[in-house]
Amino acid sequence: MKVGYIGLGIMGKPMAKNILKAGFPMVVYNRSQAAVDELVEEGAQRASNPKEVAESVDVIFTNLPDSPDVEKVIFGEQGILQGTHSGLIFVDNSTIKPLVARKIAAAFEEKGVLSLDAPVSGGDIGAINGTLAIMVGGPGEALQKVMPIFNAIGKTITHVGDSGAGQIAKAANQIMVAAQMVAMGELLIFSQKAGADPQKVIQAIQNGAAQCWTLDNKPPRLFAGNRNPGFKAGLQAKDLNIVMESSHEFGVPLPMTAVNFQLYQAMLQNNMAELDNSAVIAIIEKLANTTLDT
Amino acid sequence: MKVGYIGLGIMGKPMAKNILKAGFPMVVYNRSQAAVDELVEEGAQRASNPKEVAESVDVIFTNLPDSPDVEKVIFGEQGILQGTHSGLIFVDNSTIKPLVARKIAAAFEEKGVLSLDAPVSGGDIGAINGTLAIMVGGPGEALQKVMPIFNAIGKTITHVGDSGAGQIAKAANQIMVAAQMVAMGELLIFSQKAGADPQKVIQAIQNGAAQCWTLDNKPPRLFAGNRNPGFKAGLQAKDLNIVMESSHEFGVPLPMTAVNFQLYQAMLQNNMAELDNSAVIAIIEKLANTTLDT
Repeated sequence: MKVGYIGLGIMGKPMAKNILKAGFPMVVYNRSQAAVDELVEEGAQRASNPKEVAESVDVIFTNLPDSPDVEKVIFGEQGILQGTHSGLIFVDNSTIKPLVARKIAAAFEEKGVLSLDAPVSGGDIGAINGTLAIMVGGPGEALQKVMPIFNAIGKTITHVGDSGAGQIAKAANQIMVAAQMVAMGELLIFSQKAGADPQKVIQAIQNGAAQCWTLDNKPPRLFAGNRNPGFKAGLQAKDLNIVMESSHEFGVPLPMTAVNFQLYQAMLQNNMAELDNSAVIAIIEKLANTTLDT
Repeated sequence: MKVGYIGLGIMGKPMAKNILKAGFPMVVYNRSQAAVDELVEEGAQRASNPKEVAESVDVIFTNLPDSPDVEKVIFGEQGILQGTHSGLIFVDNSTIKPLVARKIAAAFEEKGVLSLDAPVSGGDIGAINGTLAIMVGGPGEALQKVMPIFNAIGKTITHVGDSGAGQIAKAANQIMVAAQMVAMGELLIFSQKAGADPQKVIQAIQNGAAQCWTLDNKPPRLFAGNRNPGFKAGLQAKDLNIVMESSHEFGVPLPMTAVNFQLYQAMLQNNMAELDNSAVIAIIEKLANTTLDT
């Protein structure tokens, strides 16, 4: 299987490299040429537009920041839709709106092309190590065919359902992740301002009903004064924007996530988009007019 | 060490029984006599008021619904403070406001009595099995003395700090627990209304960054239509009330927990206080005008 990869960013570049290392011949396209040069050095071919990638491969991946970026690469001039051919499979690793994922799947179906929405979680470290969780929506037939490629980039691959279901699972994931991050920020500042040692509080609660990935992994970094990503707050804000727009489209009021979205918006307003998503504690610090002792 | 236990409710009764079983002679007091009869049958002595309990034991425990109940048993007529004596240690297993815990500790200190705030988590099952997490605030000297008793009721015993620190940790715990519960409700209803299978969504996300005690334990019960406690929604609401009152007293705005408190208040208004705290999903169902498929 010849693989095309479009979008060689923080996530896409290491994922493409892992696919290449697994022995799949590869054609790449990216706006910035530095990342393309890197892949070409490792054996990939360079293409000059998405159409050209589509024409020359069996499976074409995209990994782009947001819904409009993916739409442009597919529906735009020299876009993927202009290069489809019999047997092509399209896979989107981006995190985008479920309704846009369904619209994309319908457009490919009209051309006789199978497609999968396959957003990932696990961050840049998971991308580098090939241990991502992949949440897949679309026909099982397509998933079966690309499974050898998915095995090169992910550890847990879940077929959630029809087209869009992968994006729905990713949105659901971000509802819980944001809740844990904000809860950690609130409880740490609450504890400190109430006069307890936040580190002792974490010790006391992290093995009971409050146990979670966030309390397992983030407190040592916060207590060391390290708020670097990890997973960027700007991307958390973007993903929560997808959740909130989708909540409106699907008719599901989400009162808690709505507040969490506002807190991440406050991070954007305070030039904190490049910090870790756990750095939302900085907004609680602002509200309480204090800072976490480090 | 002779032990007194006041408050033989869902939590207090099994905890008192475990202390009794561990071999500590015991004096009990409770408003309802049925629970007292049960303990007396297993070898405990009956007292007619809190003062009498205090006069006849070395360590006196309370385990009552809320701050005013604990204050009444201590400061009221025939209360514990009237029965203090040299060497007495006071331990409160209730979940109450940190500032009230500090006020109580100060009152005992004036009488030369050491005291601990020692709220627990782990629910009635943890109470029955003696596997509770105990979050302790107060002098280490007192904790050392009562440790053999704590070992009969708890598995994880954490000395968080000075008086009130145990209650602060419990409040922090409830911030995270409520966030997980509400997030689970929001993401399940979001997923279903968006057209994905909520059970598949849980499978896809529960081992990644969204991993938490709540997603590990509650979904199978919800999908089976079981919303019985577990930990009652009415108690979650009461504990969040403590968090919100304390957030005002300590000057820590908590925007997310404020919303979660309102959602649990909505449960109270809808006669759902006796359901599990995970049943907060019912409020999201009301908002979205749907029900989770079971």
